[in-house]
Amino acid sequence: MSISKEDLAEFALRLGDDSLIHAQRLCEWTSHAPMLEEDIAIANTGLDYLGRARYFLQYAGNLLNKNEDALAFLRDASEFRNLLMVELPRGDFAVCMVRQYLLDEFESAYFDALQYSTDSQIAGIAAKTVKEVAYHLRRSREWMRRFGLGTDESRQRAQAALDDLWGYVAEFFITDELEAGLVDAGVAVERSSLEGAWRHRIGELLSETGLSQPNDTWKVTGGREGIHTEHLGHMLGEMQFLQRAYPGLEW
Amino acid sequence: MSISKEDLAEFALRLGDDSLIHAQRLCEWTSHAPMLEEDIAIANTGLDYLGRARYFLQYAGNLLNKNEDALAFLRDASEFRNLLMVELPRGDFAVCMVRQYLLDEFESAYFDALQYSTDSQIAGIAAKTVKEVAYHLRRSREWMRRFGLGTDESRQRAQAALDDLWGYVAEFFITDELEAGLVDAGVAVERSSLEGAWRHRIGELLSETGLSQPNDTWKVTGGREGIHTEHLGHMLGEMQFLQRAYPGLEW
Repeated sequence: MSISKEDLAEFALRLGDDSLIHAQRLCEWTSHAPMLEEDIAIANTGLDYLGRARYFLQYAGNLLNKNEDALAFLRDASEFRNLLMVELPRGDFAVCMVRQYLLDEFESAYFDALQYSTDSQIAGIAAKTVKEVAYHLRRSREWMRRFGLGTDESRQRAQAALDDLWGYVAEFFITDELEAGLVDAGVAVERSSLEGAWRHRIGELLSETGLSQPNDTWKVTGGREGIHTEHLGHMLGEMQFLQRAYPGLEW
Repeated sequence: MSISKEDLAEFALRLGDDSLIHAQRLCEWTSHAPMLEEDIAIANTGLDYLGRARYFLQYAGNLLNKNEDALAFLRDASEFRNLLMVELPRGDFAVCMVRQYLLDEFESAYFDALQYSTDSQIAGIAAKTVKEVAYHLRRSREWMRRFGLGTDESRQRAQAALDDLWGYVAEFFITDELEAGLVDAGVAVERSSLEGAWRHRIGELLSETGLSQPNDTWKVTGGREGIHTEHLGHMLGEMQFLQRAYPGLEW
């Protein structure tokens, strides 16, 4: 099956935006983590995401004849395609690590499958990502255990973070028309096929740590269509200040 | 000559604070640089400084029987010992890179000499640092050339940054009584001995790029005695929020 360049670019943009926006939230943590060691770990994780963003946005840029910096720094909120979960405010340290854990369990399975994409560029970025995610996941699982098995406060904060974030996981597993076309061509991965195993792994870890899996009573979606929370606009205002103040800045 | 544990700890604290506070300013840049590639480079540089801060603060902590996190996150501004230059606000991209360049030229010579410290821990950290600084310096020199040989705006901004920062370089070269004792014991490096060569290297690069070396009409010192600008207090308010809000946070 043949696919259009535009669809492929849109797909790369989605994955690039997920990484770029998540990197930004992680980097906001630098020097605010409860330990210097953790500061370094969070910043390192952020760098992995920035690197991944660069690869995906470069690829999207090549397909669209735009440069990656224009894609990163000059689009408006409605042109971003990231999952809503990654644009939510930094929150406290429990929010930071619970969000990372939910993402890691997803990304671990997702990029593992995406390595076999028929698009060699996508497959290559995915293969590199798999190694990084394995490391992130080890760390976020360990923190989930420390939260759940730690003090009353740590458990309460982790549970509150889980409850607040839970409605945003639905978006991980939506394969819309565009991605369905790419799945047919072997380029993308059917997201819904990963949900059962993801829930199983999350459920196991939560029960091991005494945290409760929230009910699926609400969900929020829209990131892939450019319908974002107000938080993305504020973040972009900060991120894009320099490029917008000095258009074409190259010095 | 024998030196006291307290003096050695104070010395490690100074070097640790220089790195910690500079790391914090660099990390504020993440996602604000004019290019994704530069974002990654700045964040990587920040990580080098965070790592170095950890080594020095760990060593100071061992000598003082305190832990590194308490040193990083629980001291007041007047207990910090960093050079004033690193606590100045983030500024624009020219400030970021000019400050980095002035520091890099200094640190390159300073840690090169400090590798031969008779204190094996200090010598070890210095040896690791030398390799990192060589890389930072290559990059900051390249940016100085781009600023100076770029557009009118880039040259003006770099010159303004140089003029604003110049009065803070005097502090690099002050060997006070405490460090003089450590120099006699072979532990520390006589800072004033590095100034001539530093000025020569800076002068060469500036004349190559068309930037002017500012006059030495003013200088500001005090960081080593805990006399800081208001900017440090604001930064610490941000950095230390979490530890202060949740004392002893270990989860």
